[in-house]
Amino acid sequence: MTQPLRLGIAGLGTVGAGVVKIARRHADLIAARAGRVVVVTAVSARDRSRDRGMPLGDYAWEDDPAALAARKDVDVLVELIGGDAGPAKSAVEAALRAGKDVVTANKAMLALHGAELAALAEANGAALRYEAAVAGAIPVVKVLSESFAANETSRVMGVMNGTCNYILTRMEGAGLPYEEVFEEASALGYLEADPTLDVGGIDAAHKLALLSALAFGTPPAFDAVEIEGIERVSIQDIRFAADLGFRIKLLGVAQVTGRGLEQRMSPCLVPANSPLGQLEGATNMTVLEGDAAGQIVLRGAGAGEGPTASAVWSDVMDIARGLRVPAFGRPVDQLRVIPPAQSAAPASWYLRLTLQDKPGALGKIAVALGEGGVSIDRMRQYDHEGDAPVLIVTHPARRAAIREAIEATEASGVLAEPPVALRIETV
Amino acid sequence: MTQPLRLGIAGLGTVGAGVVKIARRHADLIAARAGRVVVVTAVSARDRSRDRGMPLGDYAWEDDPAALAARKDVDVLVELIGGDAGPAKSAVEAALRAGKDVVTANKAMLALHGAELAALAEANGAALRYEAAVAGAIPVVKVLSESFAANETSRVMGVMNGTCNYILTRMEGAGLPYEEVFEEASALGYLEADPTLDVGGIDAAHKLALLSALAFGTPPAFDAVEIEGIERVSIQDIRFAADLGFRIKLLGVAQVTGRGLEQRMSPCLVPANSPLGQLEGATNMTVLEGDAAGQIVLRGAGAGEGPTASAVWSDVMDIARGLRVPAFGRPVDQLRVIPPAQSAAPASWYLRLTLQDKPGALGKIAVALGEGGVSIDRMRQYDHEGDAPVLIVTHPARRAAIREAIEATEASGVLAEPPVALRIETV
Repeated sequence: MTQPLRLGIAGLGTVGAGVVKIARRHADLIAARAGRVVVVTAVSARDRSRDRGMPLGDYAWEDDPAALAARKDVDVLVELIGGDAGPAKSAVEAALRAGKDVVTANKAMLALHGAELAALAEANGAALRYEAAVAGAIPVVKVLSESFAANETSRVMGVMNGTCNYILTRMEGAGLPYEEVFEEASALGYLEADPTLDVGGIDAAHKLALLSALAFGTPPAFDAVEIEGIERVSIQDIRFAADLGFRIKLLGVAQVTGRGLEQRMSPCLVPANSPLGQLEGATNMTVLEGDAAGQIVLRGAGAGEGPTASAVWSDVMDIARGLRVPAFGRPVDQLRVIPPAQSAAPASWYLRLTLQDKPGALGKIAVALGEGGVSIDRMRQYDHEGDAPVLIVTHPARRAAIREAIEATEASGVLAEPPVALRIETV
Repeated sequence: MTQPLRLGIAGLGTVGAGVVKIARRHADLIAARAGRVVVVTAVSARDRSRDRGMPLGDYAWEDDPAALAARKDVDVLVELIGGDAGPAKSAVEAALRAGKDVVTANKAMLALHGAELAALAEANGAALRYEAAVAGAIPVVKVLSESFAANETSRVMGVMNGTCNYILTRMEGAGLPYEEVFEEASALGYLEADPTLDVGGIDAAHKLALLSALAFGTPPAFDAVEIEGIERVSIQDIRFAADLGFRIKLLGVAQVTGRGLEQRMSPCLVPANSPLGQLEGATNMTVLEGDAAGQIVLRGAGAGEGPTASAVWSDVMDIARGLRVPAFGRPVDQLRVIPPAQSAAPASWYLRLTLQDKPGALGKIAVALGEGGVSIDRMRQYDHEGDAPVLIVTHPARRAAIREAIEATEASGVLAEPPVALRIETV
C-alpha cells in the first residue's frame, strides 16, 4: 500500500471540525476507497482553548497556519480559514511554494486571486482544489472540470447562496417583509459577519466567477460580475410574481456570447414550476449546459458542516488517489481572457409601476414603453385605493431598451414610486 | 506534452458515432483540457458500408472488436457494442488482459459480470470505466465513486429508463392507455429490440445494480434486484394517483438495512410536486443520500447521441489525465457481499380495489385490511355504475402485511377485479 496521506487542517470552525470528524468516523472506509490511509496530523486555529466537541490532543497544534503548511508531517494543506487575503492566502502560498497540494473552501480568495494561485500551484507541481468553495455538497466543480471535459459549455446558472434563498422563500411562505426576515435570519446565525456578503450577492458572485472560469476556460473575473443583491426585493413583488406564475430567486447566470463573457448575479423571476422555481430554503441548485451533454441540473445542501466537509473530502480523496486536474480545468497558459459583456441577450422583464390615480396615467405608460421599443406580453392592474400598482411582463427585450423605456416612464410624470424591473429567466 | 492517447471504438451505432464526432469537433479543447492529444485511431462495427454521416477513412478498420482491442495503436478500448456477453465481452477481456484501459456503456455486461471484469482489470493494472452505462449524461458514477468517497451512502434512487418515463408521462398527458402509447413509442424507435428490457424494468435494474455496487462497496448483484415493469400500469391508476397528488414512476431504490441489501425496481407513486414527480419525458434523475453530504439530486438526459457520448468522453478524459479509480470504488478484495433482503422498510401503499356493487362490500374490505394490520390513511370511492373503484392510501405498513391484507380482500369475495397495489415512495 502507498504511504499514508497526511493532512494539516487550517481553521477549525464548523467546516474544519466537520472535516476532522469524517477522518475519525470513516478512517476504514476512506482507506479502503483511497487505497491508502489518510490521516490528520496537525491543525491550526485562532483559539486553542475552544471546545470543538472532539479531542484535539491527537493532532499537533500550530498557531500560525503558514507554519502548519510548512510542517514536514503535512502533505496536504486544507485551508478553511476564509478571507480573500491575510493568513489564509499566506498559508496557501506557503503550501504551494513547498509543492504541497491545497484543498480550500475559500471562494473569495479564489475569485480574486485564483489565476495567480493556480499559476503558483502549477509552477510547483501542486494541486489546488476547491469543490467546497461552490455550492456546498453539490459536486459542481468536479462535474464542470471532469464530466464536462469534452463539452463546450454554453451556460451555467445557479442559486448558490442558501441564506438569500432562505430569506426569499420565508418572505413568501410567511408573508413577511424583507427587514423582518433579515432580522430573523440574523438571530438564527444564518448571516455572515458582514451580511452584505450574503444579501448583497457578493458571496454568490464569488462562486459564479469560479464556475465561469471552469466552464469557459478563463481566469476568474469577479470584478466583471454584475451584482445586485436581494435587499430591494419587496414582499409585494414576491406576491405579484407568484400571481403571474413566477418565484423570485437570487440567480447567477454566466454565458459566452459573440460580445464576450456575461456574468450576472441578481434577483430574477423564474417559472414557479421549474426546478429553480421549486427550490426551497437553504438548498442550492446549479444548472450546466454543454453542447454534448445537454442540460444537467444538480441540487443539494449548499452549506452546513456535513455537506461542506463532504466536498472537502471529495478533493482530499482525489488527491489520495492521485488525480491531477488543473485548478481551472486547463493549464494556466491555456486560459484565455474573455472580455466582459453586459447582458445583451434579450429577455422578458417583470415591471412594477405604481401609477398616480389620475386619468390617462396608464395610457402614458403604455406609450412610453412602446416608444422605447418594449412590447407588452401581459399587463395586470390590481384593485386599488389611491396609487395603482400595474404589473407588466414584457416580450423579450434587450436590457438597454428596458432601461430606456423605464426612464421614459419616469419622465412621464405619472409614477407615484420608483419603478421596479426584474429579469425573467427561463430555464 | 505527454504522448497522445489513442482510442479504438468498438461499435458505431448512435453512441459510437457520437463519440467519434466529439473527437473531431473538439480536438483542440480536449487537448487543452487533457494536457495531451486524444485521437481515435481505429474503429470496428458490424457493417462497414453503412453511412454514419462522417468519413471513416481516417481510421483503421477491424471487423473483429477483439482484434481492435489488440492493435498496437490502440491504448484504450471504447466498447459500445452492447450485449452482456458475446463480442462485447470478448473484446473487453482482450483489452484488459493486455493491460489496456476500457471505457464502456454496457450496463448489462457490467451488471452480470462486473466483479469478474473489475478483477481482471485490477490484475492487469487497467482501468474499467462506465459513466455512460448509467443514466446517460448524468455523472452519477463519478459522483458516487469520487464526490461521495468519504460518505457512507444510505440510499440511492433513480428514474433511469427514459422510455418508461416517456410512456408513463405520455399516458398521463394524452390520457391514452398503455398499449397505445407502447405502439407509439415502438413506431418512434424508442424501444430496445427486445422491448421487455425497457418496459419490463430490466435495463433500469441493470443500472440500479451498478449504483448499488458503487454506493455500498459490493459486487453488482443484478439477480437480487426485485423487478416489476410498467406493463400493468393502467391509465386508470395514473389518473387516480394524480387525483391523490401523486405520479407513477418506474423507480429504482437500493438501500442497506440491518437485514441486508434491498434493491427494487418497480412502478411507484411519488408526490407530484417532488423532483422525481416532476420528471417529464425521457429525462433521468438520480437521488443519492450520504451521511455527510446529505441528499444530492442529479437530473439530465438519460440517453441520446450527445449525452451518452459526453459520458463516454468523461471517462476518456479521466484516463487521459491519469485518474485511476477502481471500477466499483474500492479494490475488488475490499468489496463485500451483502445478503439480499426483501423490502422490509414500511411504506404507505396505494391500493385500487374494484368492488362488486353489493351492500356491505366496502365494510368487508375495511375489515379485511384491518385484520391484516393495515390501517387506512385515506379512502376514496368514485361515482360508479355497477362495479365500484375504491382507492386506498394506507398508513406505513410492511410489504408482508400488505400482501396478507390483499389476500384477505381477495378471499372476501366482493372484488370484481384483481386488486392493484403500488408502493408510495417519499423522497
